[in-house]
Amino acid sequence: MKPWKLLSSEFLVDAPWLKVAKETCELPSGKVIDDFYTLWQPDWVLILARTKECKWVMTEQYRHGTGKIALEFPAGIIDKGETPEEAAIRELQEECGFGIDERSHNKKSMDPIGFASRMTNAAPPNPYNLKPITYLGSFPVNPDRHRGKFHVVFIDGVERLGKTSFDDTEDIETFLYTDEEFQAKVADGTFNHPLQIAGYFKWKLSQSASRS
Amino acid sequence: MKPWKLLSSEFLVDAPWLKVAKETCELPSGKVIDDFYTLWQPDWVLILARTKECKWVMTEQYRHGTGKIALEFPAGIIDKGETPEEAAIRELQEECGFGIDERSHNKKSMDPIGFASRMTNAAPPNPYNLKPITYLGSFPVNPDRHRGKFHVVFIDGVERLGKTSFDDTEDIETFLYTDEEFQAKVADGTFNHPLQIAGYFKWKLSQSASRS
Repeated sequence: MKPWKLLSSEFLVDAPWLKVAKETCELPSGKVIDDFYTLWQPDWVLILARTKECKWVMTEQYRHGTGKIALEFPAGIIDKGETPEEAAIRELQEECGFGIDERSHNKKSMDPIGFASRMTNAAPPNPYNLKPITYLGSFPVNPDRHRGKFHVVFIDGVERLGKTSFDDTEDIETFLYTDEEFQAKVADGTFNHPLQIAGYFKWKLSQSASRS
Repeated sequence: MKPWKLLSSEFLVDAPWLKVAKETCELPSGKVIDDFYTLWQPDWVLILARTKECKWVMTEQYRHGTGKIALEFPAGIIDKGETPEEAAIRELQEECGFGIDERSHNKKSMDPIGFASRMTNAAPPNPYNLKPITYLGSFPVNPDRHRGKFHVVFIDGVERLGKTSFDDTEDIETFLYTDEEFQAKVADGTFNHPLQIAGYFKWKLSQSASRS
């Protein structure tokens, strides 16, 4: 099985939030397709943030794709130069007012969220061996014709730190749900964001692995 | 929280497999966005097909979005006039050569896959109370700016029935994996189709519910 060969490409939409290209491709069989459309949207991060009381921080906001108010995990586009973890911390604060209280996690550490230790694979520099931020990997948004991906970051032990600060197109409410409540909402269809469910399942598998 | 008001819309791409619209919307705040892009792709069905030996029927094929060979569940676009279940049966046969052997399921029934019973909510008309096809619901492809959705159908007890018949752009290999093998492939990133993982998780929840 071989990949297709890209013969030419032309942008039909070239906006900051969406690019659409019309590609001419040669298949391994020799067949040429002259109108394969590919899509690109900016990479974003899914934020699985759990409070000290083991509740998921979740949001409700209007989604113009479906035209409905949707229950979701917080998420946001990764700014230029940001890591997924940095974007997750920023967006969680902006959208929900939640974050990690650095003082309560490690008063002595100059690296309370463990960035430096993660970069060097060293042990976290805090006496309680807390590991509040875990990078769980990335997914292609949709392998069929999408370029671009989303990342999954788990932040444990968050609390309400301050006020939200929305973009001027945002209007977001925050809710807290237990894991059982979240799963019931997936089962009954109240929570139906498939990309976010995939990220959650990746977290779920990581929890099984760490227990075994 | 209120929905946005659509003021006008213009198609930038209007092809059979993809439509892209540029919409002008008024937000509840009164702010007007004149370049909100929405996407549409045809509805498709995710096919969770399990053999009598409790192995998932899976495929490998090239995906031009990611540019990679990808392990996936079988899936396909729903033809006009088809139900998701009918599309699932057709695509499973075409892509993998797998299906339900009607003779082995119920020799007496004129409705071996239970369509009629599902439509009327009556009990399946077969003496073994087999329920080989379960519709598990639908998801929006991506609530942010996508219109259109995918459906999830679980077909239990399938077997190899005959030859595949690919579209002229398809080249698909079929594999069988246990549920544990599938989950390991999600955990290590070998299987990374997020929409399909969401559909699988919906099935997983339905199994927990039916056991409790």
